[in-house]
Amino acid sequence: MGHSHLTNKILNDPLYGFIRLESPLILNLLDHPLLQRLRYIRQLGMTYLVYPGATHSRWAHALGAMHLMQNALDILQHKGYGVSQDDRLGALGAILMHDLGHAPFSHALEGFLIKDMPHEEISLLLMQDLNQAMDGALNNAIDIFENQHELPFLHELVSSQLDMDRLDYLSRDSFFTGVTEGIIGVDRILQMLNVHQGKLVVDRKGVYSIEKYLMARNLMYWQVYLHKTVLSAEYLMGHIIRRARECRIAGLNIQISEDLAIFLDNPPDSNDFRNNPELRSAYTRLDDAEIMVHLKTWAKASEPLLQHLCGQLMNRQLSRVTFSSDEPDPNRIHEAGLQEARRLGLDDYAIPYLAHAGIVQNAVYRPDHQPILIQDRQRKIQSLGALSDHAYCVDLLAERRQYTQYLPKTERP
Amino acid sequence: MGHSHLTNKILNDPLYGFIRLESPLILNLLDHPLLQRLRYIRQLGMTYLVYPGATHSRWAHALGAMHLMQNALDILQHKGYGVSQDDRLGALGAILMHDLGHAPFSHALEGFLIKDMPHEEISLLLMQDLNQAMDGALNNAIDIFENQHELPFLHELVSSQLDMDRLDYLSRDSFFTGVTEGIIGVDRILQMLNVHQGKLVVDRKGVYSIEKYLMARNLMYWQVYLHKTVLSAEYLMGHIIRRARECRIAGLNIQISEDLAIFLDNPPDSNDFRNNPELRSAYTRLDDAEIMVHLKTWAKASEPLLQHLCGQLMNRQLSRVTFSSDEPDPNRIHEAGLQEARRLGLDDYAIPYLAHAGIVQNAVYRPDHQPILIQDRQRKIQSLGALSDHAYCVDLLAERRQYTQYLPKTERP
Amino acid sequence: MGHSHLTNKILNDPLYGFIRLESPLILNLLDHPLLQRLRYIRQLGMTYLVYPGATHSRWAHALGAMHLMQNALDILQHKGYGVSQDDRLGALGAILMHDLGHAPFSHALEGFLIKDMPHEEISLLLMQDLNQAMDGALNNAIDIFENQHELPFLHELVSSQLDMDRLDYLSRDSFFTGVTEGIIGVDRILQMLNVHQGKLVVDRKGVYSIEKYLMARNLMYWQVYLHKTVLSAEYLMGHIIRRARECRIAGLNIQISEDLAIFLDNPPDSNDFRNNPELRSAYTRLDDAEIMVHLKTWAKASEPLLQHLCGQLMNRQLSRVTFSSDEPDPNRIHEAGLQEARRLGLDDYAIPYLAHAGIVQNAVYRPDHQPILIQDRQRKIQSLGALSDHAYCVDLLAERRQYTQYLPKTERP
Amino acid sequence: MGHSHLTNKILNDPLYGFIRLESPLILNLLDHPLLQRLRYIRQLGMTYLVYPGATHSRWAHALGAMHLMQNALDILQHKGYGVSQDDRLGALGAILMHDLGHAPFSHALEGFLIKDMPHEEISLLLMQDLNQAMDGALNNAIDIFENQHELPFLHELVSSQLDMDRLDYLSRDSFFTGVTEGIIGVDRILQMLNVHQGKLVVDRKGVYSIEKYLMARNLMYWQVYLHKTVLSAEYLMGHIIRRARECRIAGLNIQISEDLAIFLDNPPDSNDFRNNPELRSAYTRLDDAEIMVHLKTWAKASEPLLQHLCGQLMNRQLSRVTFSSDEPDPNRIHEAGLQEARRLGLDDYAIPYLAHAGIVQNAVYRPDHQPILIQDRQRKIQSLGALSDHAYCVDLLAERRQYTQYLPKTERP
Repeated sequence: MGHSHLTNKILNDPLYGFIRLESPLILNLLDHPLLQRLRYIRQLGMTYLVYPGATHSRWAHALGAMHLMQNALDILQHKGYGVSQDDRLGALGAILMHDLGHAPFSHALEGFLIKDMPHEEISLLLMQDLNQAMDGALNNAIDIFENQHELPFLHELVSSQLDMDRLDYLSRDSFFTGVTEGIIGVDRILQMLNVHQGKLVVDRKGVYSIEKYLMARNLMYWQVYLHKTVLSAEYLMGHIIRRARECRIAGLNIQISEDLAIFLDNPPDSNDFRNNPELRSAYTRLDDAEIMVHLKTWAKASEPLLQHLCGQLMNRQLSRVTFSSDEPDPNRIHEAGLQEARRLGLDDYAIPYLAHAGIVQNAVYRPDHQPILIQDRQRKIQSLGALSDHAYCVDLLAERRQYTQYLPKTERP
Repeated sequence: MGHSHLTNKILNDPLYGFIRLESPLILNLLDHPLLQRLRYIRQLGMTYLVYPGATHSRWAHALGAMHLMQNALDILQHKGYGVSQDDRLGALGAILMHDLGHAPFSHALEGFLIKDMPHEEISLLLMQDLNQAMDGALNNAIDIFENQHELPFLHELVSSQLDMDRLDYLSRDSFFTGVTEGIIGVDRILQMLNVHQGKLVVDRKGVYSIEKYLMARNLMYWQVYLHKTVLSAEYLMGHIIRRARECRIAGLNIQISEDLAIFLDNPPDSNDFRNNPELRSAYTRLDDAEIMVHLKTWAKASEPLLQHLCGQLMNRQLSRVTFSSDEPDPNRIHEAGLQEARRLGLDDYAIPYLAHAGIVQNAVYRPDHQPILIQDRQRKIQSLGALSDHAYCVDLLAERRQYTQYLPKTERP
Repeated sequence: MGHSHLTNKILNDPLYGFIRLESPLILNLLDHPLLQRLRYIRQLGMTYLVYPGATHSRWAHALGAMHLMQNALDILQHKGYGVSQDDRLGALGAILMHDLGHAPFSHALEGFLIKDMPHEEISLLLMQDLNQAMDGALNNAIDIFENQHELPFLHELVSSQLDMDRLDYLSRDSFFTGVTEGIIGVDRILQMLNVHQGKLVVDRKGVYSIEKYLMARNLMYWQVYLHKTVLSAEYLMGHIIRRARECRIAGLNIQISEDLAIFLDNPPDSNDFRNNPELRSAYTRLDDAEIMVHLKTWAKASEPLLQHLCGQLMNRQLSRVTFSSDEPDPNRIHEAGLQEARRLGLDDYAIPYLAHAGIVQNAVYRPDHQPILIQDRQRKIQSLGALSDHAYCVDLLAERRQYTQYLPKTERP
Repeated sequence: MGHSHLTNKILNDPLYGFIRLESPLILNLLDHPLLQRLRYIRQLGMTYLVYPGATHSRWAHALGAMHLMQNALDILQHKGYGVSQDDRLGALGAILMHDLGHAPFSHALEGFLIKDMPHEEISLLLMQDLNQAMDGALNNAIDIFENQHELPFLHELVSSQLDMDRLDYLSRDSFFTGVTEGIIGVDRILQMLNVHQGKLVVDRKGVYSIEKYLMARNLMYWQVYLHKTVLSAEYLMGHIIRRARECRIAGLNIQISEDLAIFLDNPPDSNDFRNNPELRSAYTRLDDAEIMVHLKTWAKASEPLLQHLCGQLMNRQLSRVTFSSDEPDPNRIHEAGLQEARRLGLDDYAIPYLAHAGIVQNAVYRPDHQPILIQDRQRKIQSLGALSDHAYCVDLLAERRQYTQYLPKTERP
C-alpha cells in the first residue's frame, strides 16, 4: 500500500542535500494549498534587489527547518531524550506550519492588511483550519506551537532564541545571499543540544558555537535584513500600499483584484479575521505575484503619486536610507520631501511618501527574555549572559535601536 | 567623478562570491527595465515544484555568465589573446543580453505567444531597441552576438557548445536544485580555453574536463530539465494557455490583463513583432508573476476545463508523464483522456488536454554542428569526436529522442 | 557507565562533517596501533608534490568509508533490508580494516617489500591478528571481508565496483586535491542502492549518477592517479628502494633502520610473512616518515647513484614521463639513460635507473567482472553495460593500457 | 623562452581553486629546498590526533597566503593604490617565506632546539641565506618583512592583526579540521581593505566582517588551537624531547640522528645559529618525519621513562588536560605524578613528566598593539576598539590566560 512508498519520499535541498519526508502526514501537509502558498512568498521579500540569489521561498525554509527538527530530535534521542512518534510528528508539523500566516513581502505589508494581528496569531488560526480539515491530526502540533505540550523543549525547538526556525533561516539566507559569513555551525549546535528538566539547554562546550551563531545573526542583520537598500525598498512598498488604499477610499479609479480590494478598502481587524473564513480564504490567496502584478499595473495608473512610487520600485530607482543614533531633524526631512514633490509636480499630500523618518530595531539576543541556557558537565544550568566570559557578548548583542531617514536621492546632506 | 565609483560596484553571488561590475555601461545595462525584467522570470520555470531551491532568476544567470566571460577573457589575455577594452565590453554586453527575449516560463510558452520566432531573434530585436536608447553603445555587443565581429572566438564565448551561457547555467542550476552531480569544473575549463586562428579551442589536457562537462550536462537533462514531473507541469502550463486562447476566441468570459490579451487573442507573428514597438513593450511587461496571477484567477473561472487545469497546477495535482522509445499507442491515450473527461463531467473537447503523446529531444552535444575543438601541444586541432578515445563519449551524448505520454494519474497501464 | 559515553563519540571530517562512532568496538578498533599506523601513511603517496593539499591519511579514508557504510546500511534498512546489530558492526569493522595491509607510499613500494603478496592478503592476515587480540570480536567482519557471509551485499559494500571504499576515496581525493570535477554524488548514489536476492543493485533512476561516477573516476585517473609528475615520483621512489637493496646486498655501507633492513636485505615471501609474526610487527612499523627519513639520509650517502636519486626526490627535480599508445623505442631510452649517466659521471649500471619504459593500466570499470547491476521498477535486473543507452559509456571506460617513458629532463625528443 | 611558460604555472588548492604563480621568482622560491622543507612540517602539529583531516602542510599555507596577497594587491590597485612590479614581488616573496623558521611540531619544540630565538628571527636568517643564494633578488621581500619598506601597508599585509598569514591559516585550519564555524569571509574582508597615509585600514562597512573574523579566531582557539587533547599531545611531545636530552647528557644509550643530536646534546643559542651556517643546514633538515621516526625508535628504548612517553604518543594514550582560572594546587599535581610514577615502577625523577601545571594564553586581538584601523566614508580613522558599538567585542577578545593541569588519566579529581 501507499504508506511505505510515501515514507521514502525524498526532496533535494541545496543546503542540506536530501530531506526525507518521513510520514504521509508530512507529505499531505506539504501538499496542502495553505502550505503550497508559501512557495509563492519569498523568504526575504525584495532583498533580491540587493542580493540577486535571494529568491528562495518560505516553503523551502519550512522544509529546511523541518529537516533540522528531524536531526535535533535524533540527537536528543541518542542522548536519552527520545519522544513518541506522535510527539515527533507534532514537532515536525508545528515547525512546518510556523510561518503559515505571513503576508506577501512580510515586513513591508504585515500589520497593514489585518489590523493588530501579528503573523503568529494568523498562523495559529490557519493551523486550526488545517487541523479541522485533517480531522484533528494536528492537535499535537498545535499544542507544541502554543507551548501547551508537556515537553516544553519541543516548543523551544519550534520557537525560542535557539529554535530550528532561526537556525534554518540564518543558514539559508546566508547561502542564497552569498553572505558566507552568516554561515553558522548548525551541525555542531545541534550536537550540543540537550534537555534539563524538560527544558532545552546547550552543553557547556557548545558555548563558542552559540556565541558565533549570535555574531553571525548580528552580521546578517546589518548586512542583509537591515541593509539600507533593502529597507528603502520595503519602505517604498509600504508607501505604495498605503497610497493605494487612500486612492481606493477616495474613490479614485485604480485597478485592483477582488482579493486585494478586501484588505485595502476596509481593513479587517483580528475579530473579523477570526470569525470570517472567507476573509482567511482571500488572505491566503495573496502572494508575491499578486502584489507585483498590481505594482506593474499601477505604474501606468492615472494617479500621479501612485504611478511614481510604483515606477520607482519596478525600475529599481530607490530612495536613500541612512542610519543615525540621533533623532533626525523633522524640518530637514519635510524640506526634502517638499522639494521632491515640487520636482515631480505633486502637491503637499505627497511629501510623507517621499521623505520620512523611522526606527529600526535589531534584537539579536534578549538576555532577559527566556535566555539560552548552558549546562555544564555537572549538569548545573546558567543563562548565557551569566557566564562571566560571555556577558560582554550578550551585552553587545542586546536590543539596539537606530533612527533611519528615507530621503530622495536628489537630496544631499 | 562618478565613473571611478561605479567601476568598483560589486555584487554578491552565491556561486562565485563577488562579481565586479567593471564599467558604467555594464551597470546601466543591468539597471535597464529590459534587464530588470529578467529578475522576474525564473531560470527554470516550474522546476521549483520538484527542486524547491530552484527559484533563481534569469537576471542572476545573466550576471553569472558575465562573470565567467570576465574570467575567460582574463585567462585568454594571460595566454596572449588580449582584446581591446571596446571588444571586452562588447563581449560582456552580449552575454548579459543574450536571454532578453525569453518569455515567462520559457519552455512552456515559447513559440506560442509569438508565432515562429525563436527567443534568440526576440533577444536581438530587444538588443537593437536598447542600443538605440543607448546611442549605439551596444554596436559591438550586437556584432559579437550576431557573429559578425572579426574575432570569432568572442561570439563562441557567447554562443557555442562551450559558451559562458552553458557553463553558468549548468553550474547555477546544479547549485540551486541541489543536484550536485551537475557541478562542473568551470575554473578548470576556463583555464583550458585557448585561441587558434581566431577560433575558440581547448587545450588537450582539458579534454577530460570537457568530457565530464558533457556527462554533467547529460545528467542534468535527465535529472532536471527533462524530469518527468517538470515536464508534466510544463505540458500543463501549455494546455492552460492554449485553452485560455480558445476561450477568448470563443468569446467566453475569462479575466485577462491587457498585455496578455494581446498575445492570446490574436498572436502576432515575427513581422508584427518586428514592426510594432508597442507589441515589444507589451511582451516585455509579461513575466512569471503575470502568468501566475492569471492562473489563480482562472482557477475560479466559470469555464470548467480551464478551471480544472489551473486548479491542477496551483494545487500541484500533476498528471503522470512516462518515457518510451516506441511511439505510444494513440488509442490508449485517447481512451485515458476520454475516461478522465467523463470523470470530470467534461465533453470530448477536453480529451487532448487530459492525455496526449509528445516527443522530447536531448541534444547534449552535436558532433556535426560546430564541434568543440581540441588543440594539442603541437597546436594541431581535432574535433572532440575525432579523438579516438573520446569518440564513444561523443556518440553517447549525441541527440536522443524519446516519446512521452501524458496521462491522468488515475490511469494505470 | 562508559558504554553510553563511548557511543556518543563524534569525530569531525572535512567532507562529511560529524562522524559518529556508534559502538565501543569501533572506538577500540580505531585506537588500535594497527589502525593508528594508517594515520602515518598518506592516502595518495607523493601526490602532494603535484596537488599540495593531498596530504590526507589512510586513517581518515577508513573513517570516511565507515561513515558511508553507516549511511548505506541506514538507507537499505529504510527500504526493508535491515541487518542485525552484529552484521552491522561486522560491515563497519570490515570497511575500517580493509586497507590495513598497505605499505608506505603504496603504489611505489607494494610488491617489493614482500614478494607476491597483494595488499588485500596482507590486510586479511593483520585482521586475523587483530581478531585474536580482540577475542574473536571481528569474526563477522572477516567473514564479510572474505565474502563468506550469508548476505553477499555486505561484502559488495566493502569490495566491489561500487563499494564504500571507492565512493569515499574518489570524494576524498577530489576534495583534498582540489580537483572538484572528481566530486561525485555520493548521497544520491547511496539513496539509489537496493538489494535483490541478497545482491547489491542500483535503482534504475540512479543510472545517470552511476555513469557520472564512472566518468569522475576516469577523470581522476588521468588528472590525479596517473598524473605524469605523480608517476614520475613513484617510479623514482621505486628506483631508490631497488637501488638501496642492491647496495645492501653488495655490502655497501648505507644507513638503514632495523625494520627496513628486514625487507630490503632479504625480502620475505608470503609464506614467511604468514608464519612469522615478528615480520608482521616489523612491517607494521613502517610508515611514510620511516621512508622519508631514509631518503634524507641517503641523499648524503657515499654511493653516488643512490645519492643522486634521493636528491632528485627531496629537491623535487623529477624526470619527465610521457605517455604513448605505441611501445617506446628501447634504443632511444637506452641512449637517453646512457647520456644522463655520463653527465652524472656514473657507470652503465645506472642507466635503467635514469630512463626506462613502463606500462600503466586504467581500469575504470570492468564490464565482465561482477558488473554493477541495475534494477528497474519491475525489479528486473540488467548489468550496466547491457542497458542499450549506456553500453557505449561502459565500453569507453573499460580497461585501457598506455605505454610510458621515463626520461631525464635534459633529453629532448 | 621559458619565462612566459613559467608565468602560466598554476597550482590547485582545495580552498581557493587555482593559484597562479605569476613570476619565475615565485616558482624558484617555491622549489627551493628551504621552502620544500615546509611540505614536511604540518601546519597544525599533532592536531590530526583530534581532527583527522588536519594534515595540511606549512607549504600549502605559504602558497595560500601568497594567493590572498595577490588578491589583496589587486583590490588595492583597483582602489588606486597600485604598487610597482618589484614591490608586488617583494610582498609575495615575504609572505611566502614568513614561516621558513618554524621547527617541526612548532609549538611543542620551539624555543627548545635553539635557545632564546623566536621563529621570526630564524625565518629572517634563512631568508638572508636564500637572498644570498639568489643574488639579492629578495632584498625587497626582506625589507617588507622587516618593516623597512617605504609602503608600511605592505608589511602590514605580511604581519599585523589582519595579515594574509592569519586570514589564510584561519580559513585553512577551519577547512581541514572541518570546524566550519572558523570559516571567515576572506573575500569580503579583502574587498574592504584600503590604504590611508600608507597604512592598511578597513572600510567602515567591513566592520561586521572584522568582528566576525575575530569571533571565528576566538572559536578556533578554543575549539582547535587550545583543544585539550591537542595541548596534551604537545605537552607530551615537549616532555619526550626534554627527556631525550637528559638521557643524552647523562650518556644513556639512545639512538639519535646526527642532525637531531646537534640540537639535543648542546643546544645552540642565537649567536651560534647566526654565525654557523652548518647549524642552519642541520636545522633545516629537521622535519616532522625526523621527529616521528625518533619517537618510534625510542618507544623501544631501554630507558623506561622515555620508552613510556613515546609509547603514549604512538598509541594515542594521552594524559588529561583541564583548564582552570585559579592556579592549580601543586601538592595535588605532585601527588598525581607520584602515584603514576609508582604505578609505572619509575623513580621520582619521572614525576614532572607525568603531571604538571601550565598556562595558556589566548590573544585573539590586542587592542593596544597596532590595532586594526577603521576608515569611515569621510576617511576619518578610528581604531576598532574605539568604535562605541564594538568596544565590548574588542574587550571580550583581549588577552586571556588560563591555568592548565596535565594529569594521568588514572587520576580522578
